[in-house]
Amino acid sequence: MTTIDTETDVTTLINVFTVVPERQDELVDLLADATEETMRHLPGFVSANIHRSRDGERVVNYAQWESEADYEAIFERPDVREHMDGALELATADYHLYDVALTDER
Amino acid sequence: MTTIDTETDVTTLINVFTVVPERQDELVDLLADATEETMRHLPGFVSANIHRSRDGERVVNYAQWESEADYEAIFERPDVREHMDGALELATADYHLYDVALTDER
Repeated sequence: MTTIDTETDVTTLINVFTVVPERQDELVDLLADATEETMRHLPGFVSANIHRSRDGERVVNYAQWESEADYEAIFERPDVREHMDGALELATADYHLYDVALTDER
Repeated sequence: MTTIDTETDVTTLINVFTVVPERQDELVDLLADATEETMRHLPGFVSANIHRSRDGERVVNYAQWESEADYEAIFERPDVREHMDGALELATADYHLYDVALTDER
């Protein structure tokens, strides 16, 4: 279970993939495999949360890393670049690093 | 504290706002006010989580509703439409409804 709050000191990556609906399942499977085979074992990994849009047109990875430096370091790994290249054959990606400004719950 | 998992039956809205960095603070404040004044009091509201990108170019609302119908119903309210119109004077919005496909944590 992943938690979102303003107190925990994490670097949040939100990566929005735009995909054609016929390839959404394939992209979800690729990102799930990348997470389980590679990402979760890397230094600074906190969580990854793969979301599929109901309209088939987006996949979002909401991920948390201990620091921006930990996140930047993963791109030096050939296995990470291979996963990324695979995703970019299926979709375009818009990724940014975030801080949580506000959380509000019922 | 908001939680993300594949077991809880919620409808997830991810709304990605593209904004110029000089207006990011204003947009965050507007969304925070909309959440606290209006959204949190509406039927089916579970959570809202406003994120600001470190590069200043995005604001993301990661929100949870009990059902898609609860989410759709909010647009019938003039106060909600007024908040939305205010946000769209500052930014463009790309919003979709999602299900959580996978969560993985350290």
